[in-house]
Amino acid sequence: MSETFFARLPANTHTKGLGLLPADAQMGDIARQGWNILQEQVSLPVAVLSEEKIQHNLAWMQEFIDRYQVKLAPHGKTTMSPELFQLQTDAGAWGITLATAPQTEAAFAHGVRRVLMANQLVGKGNMAIVAELMRRDAHFEFACIVDSADNVDALGEYFAESGQTLRILLEYGVVGGRTGIRDRQQEDAVLEAVARWPQSLSLVGIEIYEGVLNEEAPIREFLRHVVSRAEALAETGCFKEPDVILSGAGSAWYDVVAEEFSRVNKHLDSARRHTLDVVLRPGCYLTHDVGAYHRASDRIKQNNPVAREMNFSLLPALQVWAYVQSLPEPGRAIIGLGKRDSSSDAGFPVASGHYRPQSRISEAYAAVVPAPKDWKIFAMMDQHAFMSIPEDADIKVGDMLSFDISHPCLTFDKWRQLLLINEQFDVTGSVSTWF
Amino acid sequence: MSETFFARLPANTHTKGLGLLPADAQMGDIARQGWNILQEQVSLPVAVLSEEKIQHNLAWMQEFIDRYQVKLAPHGKTTMSPELFQLQTDAGAWGITLATAPQTEAAFAHGVRRVLMANQLVGKGNMAIVAELMRRDAHFEFACIVDSADNVDALGEYFAESGQTLRILLEYGVVGGRTGIRDRQQEDAVLEAVARWPQSLSLVGIEIYEGVLNEEAPIREFLRHVVSRAEALAETGCFKEPDVILSGAGSAWYDVVAEEFSRVNKHLDSARRHTLDVVLRPGCYLTHDVGAYHRASDRIKQNNPVAREMNFSLLPALQVWAYVQSLPEPGRAIIGLGKRDSSSDAGFPVASGHYRPQSRISEAYAAVVPAPKDWKIFAMMDQHAFMSIPEDADIKVGDMLSFDISHPCLTFDKWRQLLLINEQFDVTGSVSTWF
Repeated sequence: MSETFFARLPANTHTKGLGLLPADAQMGDIARQGWNILQEQVSLPVAVLSEEKIQHNLAWMQEFIDRYQVKLAPHGKTTMSPELFQLQTDAGAWGITLATAPQTEAAFAHGVRRVLMANQLVGKGNMAIVAELMRRDAHFEFACIVDSADNVDALGEYFAESGQTLRILLEYGVVGGRTGIRDRQQEDAVLEAVARWPQSLSLVGIEIYEGVLNEEAPIREFLRHVVSRAEALAETGCFKEPDVILSGAGSAWYDVVAEEFSRVNKHLDSARRHTLDVVLRPGCYLTHDVGAYHRASDRIKQNNPVAREMNFSLLPALQVWAYVQSLPEPGRAIIGLGKRDSSSDAGFPVASGHYRPQSRISEAYAAVVPAPKDWKIFAMMDQHAFMSIPEDADIKVGDMLSFDISHPCLTFDKWRQLLLINEQFDVTGSVSTWF
Repeated sequence: MSETFFARLPANTHTKGLGLLPADAQMGDIARQGWNILQEQVSLPVAVLSEEKIQHNLAWMQEFIDRYQVKLAPHGKTTMSPELFQLQTDAGAWGITLATAPQTEAAFAHGVRRVLMANQLVGKGNMAIVAELMRRDAHFEFACIVDSADNVDALGEYFAESGQTLRILLEYGVVGGRTGIRDRQQEDAVLEAVARWPQSLSLVGIEIYEGVLNEEAPIREFLRHVVSRAEALAETGCFKEPDVILSGAGSAWYDVVAEEFSRVNKHLDSARRHTLDVVLRPGCYLTHDVGAYHRASDRIKQNNPVAREMNFSLLPALQVWAYVQSLPEPGRAIIGLGKRDSSSDAGFPVASGHYRPQSRISEAYAAVVPAPKDWKIFAMMDQHAFMSIPEDADIKVGDMLSFDISHPCLTFDKWRQLLLINEQFDVTGSVSTWF
């Protein structure tokens, strides 16, 4: 989709994190307002994306993927932002990964035409959405995953009735994990079910999500097991397209998956009927964070030879700004930032910058200082955060604080648009979200 | 606002919890589709409101409030749904309570003209929103709360510059709590600051939030302290309107606040210049829940004489439906319901109903059975829930489950619209949200 298309999307003018706008403003109008975060033209709390860091992360991951000669289908559920999907696709992503049928519809409506739905497609209401998208564009390339005979039969029957062919991937999982086939008996049952629907279902690959495991050794073991199953199944001729998709990788272990999957022989079967398409699906790299994904990137920098060669790493590009709302007693600040504004399930937001609004505009940029490390959020309610501070902290009601976050997925879904900013905190654009 | 106004709001057609709709569908179109949840015309997960239970809760709370001869300004941040604000106002609510300037703008844009912002108004970006709304409608009745001299001076200066008068309430708090004045020294400082801005600030009452306390005795003590301060301040002549607002009550202790505040002499001061306006602000009563607010209502039924007289109580009116997505190993079901679809911070969703989709539509309604009590969600990810089940459970991939929830506020904000259903699970309407 063109820039003009995105610029003409309606702005969510009756929601938070914006300045004053006409009710019928479009997304493209936001960049034209001349807003600056420090000059208080925008209502806080606000979620902002550093344009520069987004560009850095975008380029970093694409280069990493290219060096491994694999493909990238970033998990779009992280941001659910079609403007960011477009950036990812323009930078070289092969497709977009999504989690649900409505997410797929939202991406399709904003121009995405290759979707890996890394989830089971369950229920007629959801199947109807996918069937409708396939009808709307015969070139729409979609695949979802299966791990049970019951689901396979339901899909087979539905798409037989609609006269369409649904592309599916077999999902493997681990005992104690989430979805996915655990053993050979389940695999047999699923493959037998797939064989019952030769017209309406087409098996095109294998999918896993290693992120339910927490240790490298069992992850590598699982990945190797899956590769061996892929090779064995390729020999049986059950894959219906020449290119067989082998897909894995969340945002924490994509390096290990890249290593293991990129080693596999590109000719998956001895008869050379099939070529392997490795598709990795990290989603959080675009904004990164200061929590779990930061810790993952420390490991990656240390262990992965390609990341070491690339000599730099991902940067946290998503922040939430909020005001100091009250200083009701020594040692305690109440911040205008709640569970509805930022993720709180994987660590509270971390104060990173501190700014005291000035009347003299020229001083604005110079006055942002790092927030002291001992200013720490220790509890959150719907619309408030509780921050502990030293009793003699230099802090005032009305001060602005920027917060780094952990778990970008559960921060993006709190906002209907996020603002793009440059290093001077000028608002240079915005991206919409569709949750 | 009229029904027609709400019916013409655009439906969020690219988001979840809907059936197939044209991209330009309006909210009013949803009721006309003839959808039924059990007949799978709607994509799951979906958030649904029982129309009947909403009506019950609406009437119950208004009667409770009327019996105490106080006023109701339901906290709108719970639902952020203007259709529900309208229902509440039509049922007799005096106004709507909100938490932020953007929430106030969203309510104003959908017809609300009396807002108690039970929060500090901090920052020029937020003050600008309120100033703009006051400019747009001279009859817009707004008040926010203050607890610091710095904030009072910032407000005084801003509204002096804009040539407007902002109505404010003094907030009292408790040590170890959230916002609010803790002691007499702070009170003096705030009142002195208020006195510096006689043109631009008008003190019209007192506000507290007792919900940061967990025990009845300290809550009553706090409420009595606040009443004594209200009476003392009334004598000093610092309130600028004949009606003085005294406002408290979240959704857990509204009965105790009603008891304490309704006992206060309506003539607040000895000179009878001021009449007391008690305004209570529960927000969660409309949907209720099966968690903290259920426990609170048990206590209220037992202890409160008015609730006992009324002989029945609030009903959980908000549910989320989801599919059984995978049964990967004995004792474990993976449900297509994640942290992005339901609150998870105050208890996981509780399976309440179980339905196996039938091909024979006439059987649909009869086939919803209570979900076994030992089907329990024990973990959630962004898009999935993990449910423990007995190894011999009668459960299939594709089964539908309804879940009751804890903490409606953090469930509403996961949806851009919720569907209204009747007892037969027909979709009879929808309400929009503006987070």
